[in-house]
Amino acid sequence: MLRIRGDLHSQRPDTVASEEPLEIRLGGTPLAVTMRTPGDDFDLVHGFLATEGVIRSTDDLAGLRYCNSVDDAGRNTYNVVDVDLAPGVEAPDTALDRNFYTSSSCGVCGKASIDAIRTRTSYDIAGDGARLTLETLLALPDRLRAAQQVFDKTGGLHAAGLFTLDGELVALREDVGRHNAVDKVIGNAVREGRVPLSGHVLMVSGRSSFELTQKAAMAGIPVLAAVSAPSSLAVELAQQFGMTLIGFLRGDGCNVYTHPERLELG
Amino acid sequence: MLRIRGDLHSQRPDTVASEEPLEIRLGGTPLAVTMRTPGDDFDLVHGFLATEGVIRSTDDLAGLRYCNSVDDAGRNTYNVVDVDLAPGVEAPDTALDRNFYTSSSCGVCGKASIDAIRTRTSYDIAGDGARLTLETLLALPDRLRAAQQVFDKTGGLHAAGLFTLDGELVALREDVGRHNAVDKVIGNAVREGRVPLSGHVLMVSGRSSFELTQKAAMAGIPVLAAVSAPSSLAVELAQQFGMTLIGFLRGDGCNVYTHPERLELG
Repeated sequence: MLRIRGDLHSQRPDTVASEEPLEIRLGGTPLAVTMRTPGDDFDLVHGFLATEGVIRSTDDLAGLRYCNSVDDAGRNTYNVVDVDLAPGVEAPDTALDRNFYTSSSCGVCGKASIDAIRTRTSYDIAGDGARLTLETLLALPDRLRAAQQVFDKTGGLHAAGLFTLDGELVALREDVGRHNAVDKVIGNAVREGRVPLSGHVLMVSGRSSFELTQKAAMAGIPVLAAVSAPSSLAVELAQQFGMTLIGFLRGDGCNVYTHPERLELG
Repeated sequence: MLRIRGDLHSQRPDTVASEEPLEIRLGGTPLAVTMRTPGDDFDLVHGFLATEGVIRSTDDLAGLRYCNSVDDAGRNTYNVVDVDLAPGVEAPDTALDRNFYTSSSCGVCGKASIDAIRTRTSYDIAGDGARLTLETLLALPDRLRAAQQVFDKTGGLHAAGLFTLDGELVALREDVGRHNAVDKVIGNAVREGRVPLSGHVLMVSGRSSFELTQKAAMAGIPVLAAVSAPSSLAVELAQQFGMTLIGFLRGDGCNVYTHPERLELG
């Protein structure tokens, strides 16, 4: 890598965020491929399946293992995971990602999407009486960043952190894909039997989109906070789910887009 | 929206980045759905089809139109575009996104992915003799941001800008999805018959991933610059394609990860 800073030019080695494909198979049949940062792959698979509505707990899985996928040199790549669903758990009949998108975009308008998704969520987020103080909320970005610095030397990883209402970090995961980081955090909770995640705050390092809001909803998370801006559909979805959506959480401020009643302004 | 800045709390309306699904159909059959910011949809469709290797120019299309998809109130959502391919242009036989990912992750290891993709690119990027000065390169972020500020009041949009080697902005597109912004810029060039984009620089507002590097390669772009970090696979892919990959382009510096010979350090 050639590093240029003003008049200083230097050749040096550099660490970049690792990105590799992960193929998820159901009973040997390819289901989805995601470009992810290797690590916590079983968390990722659990989170992906849970937020897509395929499983609700580890009881819905009969098995989970790396396949013997090998590279040119005959080494296992650890880039293929095969999942067996427990008896009675229905597998989606085609590609899940497509399936999902097709069903979620019905009409295809934003409204139809939201309606289609809302029927799929099993948890009562609107009824979650979670409350947290503004002071606790404002402290989350620093806590996320402090925990992230230990891992991320590349500047190229997104972070997702799960916090209690007291601001205690429960789990942190990082990935080149923000949705993967969220899947890993949620999947970790699924594996530990802690879903639905009522009374928790999910904090992400970048923006909040339709996809992230929906993943949070599928895990029963009542508060979603992001360092940057939300999209229109993220706001609409959070409003309808009864989820508190916070954006631009940095320094001494933030924007509360939906359900501010969970925030104690003190 | 409740705005909190220190002790100042205010209720105010806010503008957020618009996000809606766009369904792309081939001859009436759903092909892919992407969550995008409405606008420049025909550019997006052209760019998507070109960077997925389905079309190479507008000659490969026989027709392109919005379908009559309506919302609950009977209004056209303008969220479905139907494409007719010209006679002799082969349609992918299943979902394109899956198809692509499946074929690009073959083995499934990073190496196999890259090999699979490289055979699909028709343009000789390594042979592109494009050169630009460091001064021109360092000026791009400000030019991108200046052009972006006109459009983005939300802080929630990614930008992709296409520049000449003299640093002149050819096209700017914004979207909640970075890959959509890139598809829109490339699709615009496809529609104007300017692909392959030899002698051009693509600059993106965030990070550079496998996906973006590949899209740039499919359009024959020799220089890809990003404000933030690249992923490992982006670097590997750029190296093999003969593409100059630049990251952390900000202030008076940048990191050149691959093929620095295109940069005149002056």
